[in-house]
Amino acid sequence: MVDPRISVIDERLRQVSRIIAVSSGKGGVGKSMVATTLALTLAQNSKVGLFDLDFTSPSTHLILGVKKALPKEDKGIIPPEVNGLVYMSLIYYSKDQAVPLRGADVSNALIELLAVTQWGKLDFLIIDMPPGIGDAVLDLLRLVKRVEFLIVTTSSLLAFETVKKQATLLRELKFPIIGVLENMKMNNSDSIQLETGKLGLNFLAEIPYDPKVEEAIGNKNKLLETMIAEKIREILQVKAL
Amino acid sequence: MVDPRISVIDERLRQVSRIIAVSSGKGGVGKSMVATTLALTLAQNSKVGLFDLDFTSPSTHLILGVKKALPKEDKGIIPPEVNGLVYMSLIYYSKDQAVPLRGADVSNALIELLAVTQWGKLDFLIIDMPPGIGDAVLDLLRLVKRVEFLIVTTSSLLAFETVKKQATLLRELKFPIIGVLENMKMNNSDSIQLETGKLGLNFLAEIPYDPKVEEAIGNKNKLLETMIAEKIREILQVKAL
Repeated sequence: MVDPRISVIDERLRQVSRIIAVSSGKGGVGKSMVATTLALTLAQNSKVGLFDLDFTSPSTHLILGVKKALPKEDKGIIPPEVNGLVYMSLIYYSKDQAVPLRGADVSNALIELLAVTQWGKLDFLIIDMPPGIGDAVLDLLRLVKRVEFLIVTTSSLLAFETVKKQATLLRELKFPIIGVLENMKMNNSDSIQLETGKLGLNFLAEIPYDPKVEEAIGNKNKLLETMIAEKIREILQVKAL
Repeated sequence: MVDPRISVIDERLRQVSRIIAVSSGKGGVGKSMVATTLALTLAQNSKVGLFDLDFTSPSTHLILGVKKALPKEDKGIIPPEVNGLVYMSLIYYSKDQAVPLRGADVSNALIELLAVTQWGKLDFLIIDMPPGIGDAVLDLLRLVKRVEFLIVTTSSLLAFETVKKQATLLRELKFPIIGVLENMKMNNSDSIQLETGKLGLNFLAEIPYDPKVEEAIGNKNKLLETMIAEKIREILQVKAL
């Protein structure tokens, strides 16, 4: 039997112009920081939603400093507005507890969240994806066909190896990749840029390691002053994202 | 029906004195580096196995610089010896390709690897776990009852939040936690140490950020000269791990 919620998902996202999934091959590369900062930066000129689907370690609520804002129920779920973003996270349903989710439960929670959330009219919906290629990523690819990917890596060989795998999968499935961001850079090597080029992917920018990022957790204004925000503004000025 | 492989797992691990799972709440904290360096350090005085079960981004083969060594089949799988370690990784079966594994496939691969691998007599088996609390972690807890956990974090609030969740789960299930390592430290704050104490966990050491770690990838001797190796030696000298 086809899950009846699946047909609802397209309708829910009908008024969203672009859906950008911020993704990484492995964790700890600053993916959630980039997703949140990208959403906040775009929101200065556009209507933007931020959707935390990182089942492995949801953290955009900490980065945004979400306090007490809760979704409302009205023929689905209406996400709260947080720091100017239409914000939704699975933590509203897991209560941020140590809830180990099996693959099937991850799929179920993802479908449920996609089917019930009333995003309304948005210019951009930014999704903070789980790292790697697991159940949630595979489900999203199956359920939402219009997703574009922005891939975050660090300068480390170990992180970039996983980017290669993810890029291969996305290409086979014909999902567009906006490009690769090299985050937390602490060296002068251009090897990530070169390797990105070899994969035929767009190298968007390198973002120097910035100790202010940790201090900016929970503070919108400080987030918009980090190197991540600065580089994202540069990308938006020079290139159409 | 009970999977017949499950009864075999205990027998396969019978001659292994201690099983230590190196774990983290989220990725990118240097877990695989710590697991590999711990295994190499222990191997200077003991017989040690290293088992890469990080389905999200296997990387110990890159860190060890594994070349061409392949498991042999003989009433099960006999792992190759790599840099003095008895070494096994799921990459021998996934061929390091972009193979997206569903939760059920992860469980199946994990059970298969545990059931077929002939470790022989070992003083220590070090397991590089996937980050977080997913299918592979839950299966390991179900299948191997004698695992002790060593948890790696960075100084970041976002990483430590996920440590709390993992520690809560492990305690509920009554698995011993050896302690917490704070890796890639770049500040002078003792907040991770304090928070670890509040959780009632043993704070093992802080490991300063060391740019030599990236250069040591693939080189055993260089790995044993990093700050990670130095701190692990200190822990082994002062405290019984």
